[in-house]
Amino acid sequence: MRKSKIVVLGAGYGGLMVVTRLQKLVGVNEAEIVLVNKNDYHYETTWLHEASAGTLHHDRVRYDVSNVIDRNKVEFIEATVEDINTEDKKVVLNTGEVEYDYLVFALGGESETFGIKGLKDHAFTITNVNNARQIREHIEYQFATYNTEEEKKDERLTIVVGGAGFTGIEFLGELTNRVPELCRDYDVDFQKVRIICVEAAPMVLPGFDEELVKYAVAKLEKKGVEFRIGTAIKEATPEGIMVAKGEDEPEEIKAGTVVWAAGVRGSHVIEKAGIENMRARVKVQPDLRAPGHDNIFVIGDSSLIINEEINRPYPPTAQIAMQQGEVVARNLSALVHGKEELETFTPDIKGTVCSLGEDDAIGVVYGKKLMGTKASFMKKVIDNRALFMIGGVSTVLKKGKFKFF
Amino acid sequence: MRKSKIVVLGAGYGGLMVVTRLQKLVGVNEAEIVLVNKNDYHYETTWLHEASAGTLHHDRVRYDVSNVIDRNKVEFIEATVEDINTEDKKVVLNTGEVEYDYLVFALGGESETFGIKGLKDHAFTITNVNNARQIREHIEYQFATYNTEEEKKDERLTIVVGGAGFTGIEFLGELTNRVPELCRDYDVDFQKVRIICVEAAPMVLPGFDEELVKYAVAKLEKKGVEFRIGTAIKEATPEGIMVAKGEDEPEEIKAGTVVWAAGVRGSHVIEKAGIENMRARVKVQPDLRAPGHDNIFVIGDSSLIINEEINRPYPPTAQIAMQQGEVVARNLSALVHGKEELETFTPDIKGTVCSLGEDDAIGVVYGKKLMGTKASFMKKVIDNRALFMIGGVSTVLKKGKFKFF
Repeated sequence: MRKSKIVVLGAGYGGLMVVTRLQKLVGVNEAEIVLVNKNDYHYETTWLHEASAGTLHHDRVRYDVSNVIDRNKVEFIEATVEDINTEDKKVVLNTGEVEYDYLVFALGGESETFGIKGLKDHAFTITNVNNARQIREHIEYQFATYNTEEEKKDERLTIVVGGAGFTGIEFLGELTNRVPELCRDYDVDFQKVRIICVEAAPMVLPGFDEELVKYAVAKLEKKGVEFRIGTAIKEATPEGIMVAKGEDEPEEIKAGTVVWAAGVRGSHVIEKAGIENMRARVKVQPDLRAPGHDNIFVIGDSSLIINEEINRPYPPTAQIAMQQGEVVARNLSALVHGKEELETFTPDIKGTVCSLGEDDAIGVVYGKKLMGTKASFMKKVIDNRALFMIGGVSTVLKKGKFKFF
Repeated sequence: MRKSKIVVLGAGYGGLMVVTRLQKLVGVNEAEIVLVNKNDYHYETTWLHEASAGTLHHDRVRYDVSNVIDRNKVEFIEATVEDINTEDKKVVLNTGEVEYDYLVFALGGESETFGIKGLKDHAFTITNVNNARQIREHIEYQFATYNTEEEKKDERLTIVVGGAGFTGIEFLGELTNRVPELCRDYDVDFQKVRIICVEAAPMVLPGFDEELVKYAVAKLEKKGVEFRIGTAIKEATPEGIMVAKGEDEPEEIKAGTVVWAAGVRGSHVIEKAGIENMRARVKVQPDLRAPGHDNIFVIGDSSLIINEEINRPYPPTAQIAMQQGEVVARNLSALVHGKEELETFTPDIKGTVCSLGEDDAIGVVYGKKLMGTKASFMKKVIDNRALFMIGGVSTVLKKGKFKFF
């Protein structure tokens, strides 16, 4: 009997969890495991706001894939996935093709700009290591340039963050810590700097506890953030953005830096491959397989799971992606071992903590509301847990966050 | 009798030397001393190539003026000098006017672009702390951006240095040390990076010993520098530069970064004030006063002193500026004390060392040729000596270079 070939696309939280679990569950003679990833490293997507603000070096948010996979059992291909031919069971890479018997789609999400004009060209997004360090350097270059110009352009020192969701708020938390450092380093008056958060929805952090949101907004405002809530970005230009509240006349905000942190959608490869989707996300079956594709599992940001309690999709998180990865590893092992009964996935939400910078946060953990240093402590515990779950003790020791107070 | 008012313009090597010496030579009741400087800090002009390459933080190349002046004796004005009214004995600042009885002009030099088209707009110059850190950040931003673009633009990684004189060569030395770090930090293939030195003159480091120059060129070439000697920059554009050898057809070099390190002229304020000059430099009298202006001393990069041995001007250096500063301090003290006989200035050239990076250099010190670590050691001794001469022991301890090997 021919060995099954399992191909995992993406070395994010979900994909790496599948591979690190699977390599323990199946023998070399039972299945061939292939991992495909664009880079030879994994990065902590949930830490990118720190690398983007410059409060954590980007090498701290990534580690080599080779550190956590068993090279005797897993073949690693560094390549970009361009398409999937589900008929012929082939993945099209920029470097060639790979056949599969079972496929795990874990390529992660992409930025969603909702068709807002100019956003793709004139705004940064916090989506990967490359973009994150570019944002950091772009902001630093604006500060470095400010004093070299005869006629000072104060708008160089204006940073607009589009979106007051999780990523937006966490980025603002880091940014407000970083800006005073930049001011000192480049002899810039702190009063000249503006950090503006523009959010189309009528509230900050929708879905979060109201008291916690109030705390977060007050803290960020105290550190200099101006919130423009219920205000939509109508257009991004080389000079900044155009915003409008409701039907009001659009108003220009000149800004040297615009970071779009508002929307996430699934991977464009899902659409290209013709797999049934909503905004490139696949509403997966209870066993995490794509409808109509018995040999394709979809997990992470490109999967869609409905929270039955409120009849709305769960927001895509690292927590869910890792839990999905564990289930998919077991389901693949079952299939390889000839079992037909697959496990059903149910998210187990332990809590959500939103960081407000190095030493502050808000969150709900096991149903308990937390804010300030306690929440910040829990955030670091969660961050270290993700490292541990995939990379084990040695990765936590190398990349973990131990400055708790 | 009214106290004499001595106004010193510029807190560079020359100006600060005048003030720190003068505050010991004259009493509070004998003269009023005013120091005018654009920034509240002094910077080591001869270290700017390190801050520009990013091998030394810009805070390491500067210190507060207030650390070295005696505030009981010296009034410090942070302002930009716009003009001098020699008739009315007034200095026009951006913030007002200051009258003087004696003036010391020590504003330093400016970049000379020889009318090359586009150079002012599209090339950086290593002239002050603001520009230096902007160059560092600009280069880093090019590296940070490289991997974010679908279509890689290799020219982002091309750095052109215009000029193979002292500044150009020292900058190249630092750059070749910095580039491998940048490659590691931004996942860039070193082979993609180009560092090109374009020099219109037929040789590198004119005036330097031939054997030493050969050593320097070989070392820099080994570290990846391409030399284009006898090749003139015809134009700088947003995309790079146009160069030509002799009467050849101009050729384009696409480059993300162009640094012009070739020409120095005197201060434009000299020209504006109508003081007799050649390229904004004043051919001073033996006692360092400007011809026709018995109460104006000119020192540093805006002064011109002829080396009688070869009948050519001494190149402006920190060494000469500091020696001039000492003489001017004594001459001012003489004038304040009613003496008419002033001291004559004769440069005492102890040596010249050109750095090739952290641990390499070439030079001639007290007539002895040096290269490699010995020369590099001497370079650091010279750098520390400048700190000591103006700032004393405490400044050397704070800002000195002690990593000798």
